[in-house]
Amino acid sequence: MITVLAGGVGAARLLAGLMRVVPPHDITAIVNVGDDLVLHGLAISPDLDTVTYTLANAIDADRGWGLADETWNAMAMLEQLGGERWFNLGDRDLGTHLYRTERLSSGADLSTVTTEIARAWGLDLGLLPATNDPLRTFVTLPDENDTEVSFQRYFVERQHNVRVSAVRFDGAATAKPAPGVLDALDDCDTIIIAPSNPIVSIGPVLAVPGIRDVVERRHDRTVAVSPIVAGAAIKGPADRLMKELGHDPSVVGVARMYRSLASTLVIDGADRDLAPAVEAEGVQCIVTDTIMRGPAEAAALVRATLKEFR
Amino acid sequence: MITVLAGGVGAARLLAGLMRVVPPHDITAIVNVGDDLVLHGLAISPDLDTVTYTLANAIDADRGWGLADETWNAMAMLEQLGGERWFNLGDRDLGTHLYRTERLSSGADLSTVTTEIARAWGLDLGLLPATNDPLRTFVTLPDENDTEVSFQRYFVERQHNVRVSAVRFDGAATAKPAPGVLDALDDCDTIIIAPSNPIVSIGPVLAVPGIRDVVERRHDRTVAVSPIVAGAAIKGPADRLMKELGHDPSVVGVARMYRSLASTLVIDGADRDLAPAVEAEGVQCIVTDTIMRGPAEAAALVRATLKEFR
Repeated sequence: MITVLAGGVGAARLLAGLMRVVPPHDITAIVNVGDDLVLHGLAISPDLDTVTYTLANAIDADRGWGLADETWNAMAMLEQLGGERWFNLGDRDLGTHLYRTERLSSGADLSTVTTEIARAWGLDLGLLPATNDPLRTFVTLPDENDTEVSFQRYFVERQHNVRVSAVRFDGAATAKPAPGVLDALDDCDTIIIAPSNPIVSIGPVLAVPGIRDVVERRHDRTVAVSPIVAGAAIKGPADRLMKELGHDPSVVGVARMYRSLASTLVIDGADRDLAPAVEAEGVQCIVTDTIMRGPAEAAALVRATLKEFR
Repeated sequence: MITVLAGGVGAARLLAGLMRVVPPHDITAIVNVGDDLVLHGLAISPDLDTVTYTLANAIDADRGWGLADETWNAMAMLEQLGGERWFNLGDRDLGTHLYRTERLSSGADLSTVTTEIARAWGLDLGLLPATNDPLRTFVTLPDENDTEVSFQRYFVERQHNVRVSAVRFDGAATAKPAPGVLDALDDCDTIIIAPSNPIVSIGPVLAVPGIRDVVERRHDRTVAVSPIVAGAAIKGPADRLMKELGHDPSVVGVARMYRSLASTLVIDGADRDLAPAVEAEGVQCIVTDTIMRGPAEAAALVRATLKEFR
């Protein structure tokens, strides 16, 4: 049994590899919901959808988000009407948000709806939001008079092309882990922290009271995959955010952030020379190819990780 | 200045004719919102949209509702997920609902949003919801244990193919006319009651406190166009509903329903023989072609009405 702490793209790719190595019933992904938003009245869960669409082979691989074979007619009309269209929603993707919104409004919780969507796509792994409660990531922008904006206003609207001076997980203090989350962390053989952004993807998951505690308790059974390769994020602003928030944007910095959580860090061959520095932080090191161009590379990464992790 | 009490399709066609006869700035339509619904989290105003799309030449004429050149990809995804899809929403049409929902959620009222949408389509007439407050039509179904369902559950989901024993306008008692509605009725030269369903299209408009009073006061300046021709509705369940709720489903029955509101009823040539019976109800009669296959016939109907109405 393997439980994965997951953000969006990087986690989705890792999970696609894991699905080639381990039966889906043995996998549980606990997914970030700090990026979630309500827009145009619709409940949108970008990381859950990225994981679902990726594992269902339905993701648009070029774009990196949303569904393949997508059309954009609703957005075109919204634009014609002068509506807000900084957050692009494809027509097929809208069907997912309509479904989720309708189910939530009729009283279902997010974990139930998430499972329904996963099953409709034929996915048999456990797919859980970190929490069913509203937990929302906000970032403070020092170059905009310390305005605090929601994650997607930062990530999508500003294309994460601005400085960040603080990150806050609104609602975290009172959020409860979704049903099954703590058990999945407690009962598994291995916890994998996916190569997602440590601050704004894994951070919100760990901010749900109870989750960090159980991962720390299971430190010896937890392995993280570095999202930083050669000092840069594979995708997104992890390196920049780490630096701006006082972390070393390197595998050593990742090791420092995760050392209370994970006994082992998987780093890319490009960072081989930093393995001693990682181990000097008290974190064992696995060196392998971590760049996942597709499920085959992801499966190789997972195999190497599970083989060498003790 | 002409003010029209309007439902959906029949009113939209009449208005399209009126736009050919009178400058748009001289026209105000006061539109039924009893059919409105929130579905999948989206605020949907079917009659307002039917009027807007029709006047913008954007309606799908064959279907009779929604936009031309429509795609259905969101609905297909919703169906794949097992979602509720009894109420069809095209992708372009969804853009309208996204816009309306976003604007309402940011505090705009329905009449403001309705005007914004009309202007975006290049429409210069006054287009007002009867009220900005939630007024919702419910019908009681005697063959389903007197269950009360929302209008669209009756009209669309059951395709109005069931008996109705009662109609109720939820929220009507406390609804206020939208800004401009009473003035438009007070200050115009002529009020036209469009050939819409008297019970579930015009009924909810008149149920907003204040609207019936001003129309009754302006009885001499009000003319109704019968939605019933030769004992049947041109479209929809008006005849059936009238019968089930104790009205004569004929132009005479329409005259009885409207005689306190309108001094004149326009009836189709097919009902020429009933003109004396209509006038016996104290309602003057204009006999002309009332079936509007397109804007040209609608314009002819409007011209005949305005010419003969005293």
